Amino acid sequence: MKHFFTVGPSQLNANIEKYFKKAMLQNVGSISHRSQAFRDIYKNTDLQLRKLMNIPNTHSIFFMPSASEIWERMITNCVQKKSAHFMNGAFSKKFHEYSQSLGKQTQTFILEDHLGFNDLHKYKIDDDVELICVTLNETSSGAYIQENELVKLKKQHPIKLICADIVSCAPYPKLNFKYLDCAFFSVQKAFGLPAGLGVWIVNDACLEKSKTIKNKSAHHSLENFVKNYATFETPSTPNVLDIFLLGEVATEMNNTGIDAIRKTIEERAKILYDLPLKNKNLEINIANKKNQSQTVVVFNTKIAAQEIIKKLALKNIIIGSGYGAFKTTQIRIGNFPAVSEKAFKSLVKELWNV
Amino acid sequence: MKHFFTVGPSQLNANIEKYFKKAMLQNVGSISHRSQAFRDIYKNTDLQLRKLMNIPNTHSIFFMPSASEIWERMITNCVQKKSAHFMNGAFSKKFHEYSQSLGKQTQTFILEDHLGFNDLHKYKIDDDVELICVTLNETSSGAYIQENELVKLKKQHPIKLICADIVSCAPYPKLNFKYLDCAFFSVQKAFGLPAGLGVWIVNDACLEKSKTIKNKSAHHSLENFVKNYATFETPSTPNVLDIFLLGEVATEMNNTGIDAIRKTIEERAKILYDLPLKNKNLEINIANKKNQSQTVVVFNTKIAAQEIIKKLALKNIIIGSGYGAFKTTQIRIGNFPAVSEKAFKSLVKELWNV
Repeated sequence: MKHFFTVGPSQLNANIEKYFKKAMLQNVGSISHRSQAFRDIYKNTDLQLRKLMNIPNTHSIFFMPSASEIWERMITNCVQKKSAHFMNGAFSKKFHEYSQSLGKQTQTFILEDHLGFNDLHKYKIDDDVELICVTLNETSSGAYIQENELVKLKKQHPIKLICADIVSCAPYPKLNFKYLDCAFFSVQKAFGLPAGLGVWIVNDACLEKSKTIKNKSAHHSLENFVKNYATFETPSTPNVLDIFLLGEVATEMNNTGIDAIRKTIEERAKILYDLPLKNKNLEINIANKKNQSQTVVVFNTKIAAQEIIKKLALKNIIIGSGYGAFKTTQIRIGNFPAVSEKAFKSLVKELWNV
Repeated sequence: MKHFFTVGPSQLNANIEKYFKKAMLQNVGSISHRSQAFRDIYKNTDLQLRKLMNIPNTHSIFFMPSASEIWERMITNCVQKKSAHFMNGAFSKKFHEYSQSLGKQTQTFILEDHLGFNDLHKYKIDDDVELICVTLNETSSGAYIQENELVKLKKQHPIKLICADIVSCAPYPKLNFKYLDCAFFSVQKAFGLPAGLGVWIVNDACLEKSKTIKNKSAHHSLENFVKNYATFETPSTPNVLDIFLLGEVATEMNNTGIDAIRKTIEERAKILYDLPLKNKNLEINIANKKNQSQTVVVFNTKIAAQEIIKKLALKNIIIGSGYGAFKTTQIRIGNFPAVSEKAFKSLVKELWNV
């Protein structure tokens, strides 16, 4: 049996087959997305996510096929002219590219890939920027932006919309949605589910903005989402199975308790970040402790990354390579809740010796 | 155990749990979409679909989250100015609305919802139309357009792009892709799979057209799809599980043989369309035989549709209501391959007596 420590898709929740069977018994694959049975599924997943991530009623929860589609829909729905982007890795750069491709003007703040942003509120953002895009957890580098940075940023720019890409860290971050207009993630990371679902959390300010923008998608416009959300429906047939499974996993996480989940993630992250003390072939990519991701841990490797990856694969431990240009010089480890204590210990033991 | 005769989502393939288990054994939910394991899955599904639907190498097969997203992407990728639409029901109208919402001009040909189009090549299509949109099987009404209509249409308009929405009939239609630039469907209809995957079949003419169009999506542009398709990859993380399951179901269908599948569909459709001879409460919605869908059979009901639907539900037989304004006056029956012979006989028996 293989154990996945990849940064997503990653290890599936241990009860996934049980939840799939439950889904089949409830005909989740056959029911209409206009039926009460579907509305009950949506409602439950919505409720469990609110509890887990402390999402207030000021925000709606919409289901999309992926987080990368949400990059695009945030721009098409909420930007007429200009977006601003904090960029320090491949995925924050992709978000920026999406905006450019859609013909928008952009303002960019760029750090090298081994650095993390701090004091975001001190950056001078142009007056005509409508949306500020923050990648809280840069999956390519393991750089994290502390949650309170979002609060300071919003206080500095109360009129602008702020969105946080929390793709590879949700539900770990303690977000204060009073100071955040939008957050989004996908389920194949820390929720341990098969890919095919993105979760889009948005407030009324985003909706109001979207009403002012013309010639945008009929398919996934915020207005369509809001209209359907009134009865816990979706604009078109969604990935009902994944919505159901997300409800089950979020319920399980609520039963464990988000604080306990955070504690485990942090304890394991500490063990991972301590590895270079024992193994001189590993060096932490993000030097500044404040910016070290707890869910995506990236090491520079003194030997070829592929050697380490192959060696671990022989023990059925699957980790990721560095992203893009860092493919042969870095390893990436997804520190997600679906991993068992036993599997985590095996990982650590193997990484001592590579 | 319930039997679903809804028009999609509908009855799941009888072996779905077996295929899901196989997927879990192969770690389909955890593997990277940049891994050889994923490429092999894509390649197999691609191969099986080509065999099943006689798709030549002139066309690529791309995976999207839904057919409704494909409506939008066909417009954004292949229409700069104007699209033409044959409209005779809710879904052909929606395709048209998508184009309008995206700020395109449209030319429309409209029939009442109980009629089907014939002689499409005789309609006068404006010179500046770039894409002609044909809904082969109108899921809302059960109106079908004969496959050879697409050939005649293309011969009349060799320079224009023609796309066929085959959402609720694929893989039934015998399409000649020599005369068709694009076709698309979703898997929760006749393929008996959980929703969350659309299949987009496009030729080089569509790709060439897309290269001339600016400010379109970075997320799902045809160029991005083509670039990734060279190694059987996708632009972003797709619904890997559904792609795997589609490969399994298409393999199963190839083992049965498409001719045998078509024969069963046609034999059952005949039995359904003969029902009004035995039950005077039912009247076929589409009078012209040439335009009667074999996969979506719609009846006008002389008693309230909800009464019939409720009566059958008591026997665990789930059928659909009419769409939109026809909710209380029509029933819709999905005649898809996943339904067992026994379940089909139960349906017919019950419909004799309602």
